[in-house]
Amino acid sequence: MEWLRVTYLLASSPAEVRARAEAVAVEQSVEMPVTAIRHPHVLEDILAKVDSIEPAGADRFEVVIRVSAATTGHEVSQLVNMLFGNLSIQEHVQLVDAVFPASLLSAFSGPRFGIAGLRERVRAWERPLTATALKPQGLTSPELATLCKTFALSGIDVVKDDHGIADQAYSPFAERVRACQRAVDLANRETGRATLYAPNLSGSPRQLFEQVRIVREEGVRAVLLAPMLIGLPVFQELVAERLDVPVFAHPSFSGVTRIAPPFLLGKLFRLFGADAVIFPNHGGRFAFGPDLCGRLVKAARDPWESVRPALPAPAGGMSVDRVDEMIGAYGNDVMLLIGGALLAAGDQLPDHSRQFVGKVEASARASRAGARSP
Amino acid sequence: MEWLRVTYLLASSPAEVRARAEAVAVEQSVEMPVTAIRHPHVLEDILAKVDSIEPAGADRFEVVIRVSAATTGHEVSQLVNMLFGNLSIQEHVQLVDAVFPASLLSAFSGPRFGIAGLRERVRAWERPLTATALKPQGLTSPELATLCKTFALSGIDVVKDDHGIADQAYSPFAERVRACQRAVDLANRETGRATLYAPNLSGSPRQLFEQVRIVREEGVRAVLLAPMLIGLPVFQELVAERLDVPVFAHPSFSGVTRIAPPFLLGKLFRLFGADAVIFPNHGGRFAFGPDLCGRLVKAARDPWESVRPALPAPAGGMSVDRVDEMIGAYGNDVMLLIGGALLAAGDQLPDHSRQFVGKVEASARASRAGARSP
Repeated sequence: MEWLRVTYLLASSPAEVRARAEAVAVEQSVEMPVTAIRHPHVLEDILAKVDSIEPAGADRFEVVIRVSAATTGHEVSQLVNMLFGNLSIQEHVQLVDAVFPASLLSAFSGPRFGIAGLRERVRAWERPLTATALKPQGLTSPELATLCKTFALSGIDVVKDDHGIADQAYSPFAERVRACQRAVDLANRETGRATLYAPNLSGSPRQLFEQVRIVREEGVRAVLLAPMLIGLPVFQELVAERLDVPVFAHPSFSGVTRIAPPFLLGKLFRLFGADAVIFPNHGGRFAFGPDLCGRLVKAARDPWESVRPALPAPAGGMSVDRVDEMIGAYGNDVMLLIGGALLAAGDQLPDHSRQFVGKVEASARASRAGARSP
Repeated sequence: MEWLRVTYLLASSPAEVRARAEAVAVEQSVEMPVTAIRHPHVLEDILAKVDSIEPAGADRFEVVIRVSAATTGHEVSQLVNMLFGNLSIQEHVQLVDAVFPASLLSAFSGPRFGIAGLRERVRAWERPLTATALKPQGLTSPELATLCKTFALSGIDVVKDDHGIADQAYSPFAERVRACQRAVDLANRETGRATLYAPNLSGSPRQLFEQVRIVREEGVRAVLLAPMLIGLPVFQELVAERLDVPVFAHPSFSGVTRIAPPFLLGKLFRLFGADAVIFPNHGGRFAFGPDLCGRLVKAARDPWESVRPALPAPAGGMSVDRVDEMIGAYGNDVMLLIGGALLAAGDQLPDHSRQFVGKVEASARASRAGARSP
């Protein structure tokens, strides 16, 4: 028998915590009164078990539950169901982490390119990658293509659609992707660089499959997906069966207060195939603290059996003057994503973009020099 | 121009609430500094606007934001992105409700059967419907089929898979669905009733599409889907394009503390096509209060332009002795779902199931008689 070991944070009085932990185990497996179960193999092999209960602050406990791997069917939606299905509706429970057995790790591709593959694609082997976003939605396809060209000429590695750019009347997917990819191709010919354009794929399976076809046809070399908006099982199927380019995962709709972000964004997105994981860095527009961000970066990048590392991409209100600090905190295996702060430069956009690129390159050189000196 | 009017609950001091509301409007539309936007049409037609700010308790405000319908692309994933994409990561914001313009309502099918269609399917025109769940997972297909038969013979209207029953080795989808549907068909021939078996569909699009094929082949007459597990856009596409039987929506993974359940389960699931909406009723294993449940039931059932009503299904630890109370609170347009409490009866399962059916019929007769008397 294989088991997942799932860690939950429970709000509970010490007196009630054992009963609450047992209730979690029942809710997430057989979901019926245990006394009414007559099949010994269900009690032994299917019913989840409480492995440990440890205090984690006042009236909070970290509870590890053993969940049968067989119950997951080794597919995404049922795996997520077993991890946090009905529990997501319980206010006193947070999903913190899980340790997966071998059969579950090998059921999913993980990142197909990972950090090394992404570096090869943009031909940057040591320094952090630079990225920006096309904004605002409402621009036409030619306007977005012009932005693409400006960014690519300035040397930014990855130009992605804003996650709000979908298949809207003012910049339909097919038209926009063609225009933007061509603009980036032209700029690459001029600079000799290998900037990637990453369009945002969205919609239902029928729409997504059609967008994948267009991506292939236009020679697009990376894509952006929001796993929680399109659905985690769809994300995983697209990666494993339909896309042959690197995938950037966007955190939109990840509603992260109930699932620890290092686990959802760092581990699950990675396991299901994200090559880079965009996350809201501290000190921007979101409330993630430095410690949480550090753990998320570790989860995305740390060695994990045969699962390739994913590139963490701090974002969400970053600016060029934080480049050194971010590289200092996260090192060079990172993709720095600055969107609105570049666009705010208005006419100075090309200069500001080049400054971003230059600063990252200088900072990486300095850190290499620092690493060489004793 | 068409706009959605979206209501959020904001935690904020009175001094900061205007700035926070404006920040929400920016985050959910252009997501960049407004001062850097040069296109008047983006400022006028795309940028979301703060419509109103009303106090809603100490340091809490109800804020209505006008969001451009054009930005949604009239498809599910981008609609949800515009409603609560990045905001889901903001701890101080809850999505409470939205008023949809005509173009968005007509972009989705809503329930294709609704309450009237479900009643016709099970031939029960006035009384509440009865439902139960096959449990626990881990049983074999023949064992589940035996349970099906017992429930169907007792006269329960809907026998659904537990939402944890997916495509696992111990009861593979194709084998289980064939066995369960045949058991219910046999029982129906015996009783003259029209009990529905509703298998749980799960997985990625490829797996779901194959399951839809099997459902069709086996003459299955209803299905269970967990929209948040398979993804809301997938749910909507399955309903609108692939399934021709009633659909029951399960709340698993709906993580409802951040989106008001009456909106997510009552309105969004309904708009995207749920014929019945299963929800955790108060006094069971979940923390929804009576008032919240009442609002959810209203949202699922109330007249709403051309969108058919969905049948609310209180569940999550209900028992036969609560039948009268639930009918008293919610009326007859409801599907009472009792799972574990029936199974807990062990050898008395057939009796207990018949008691459930009898009690619902008696209660409905009494309420009709009451309605006729002055």
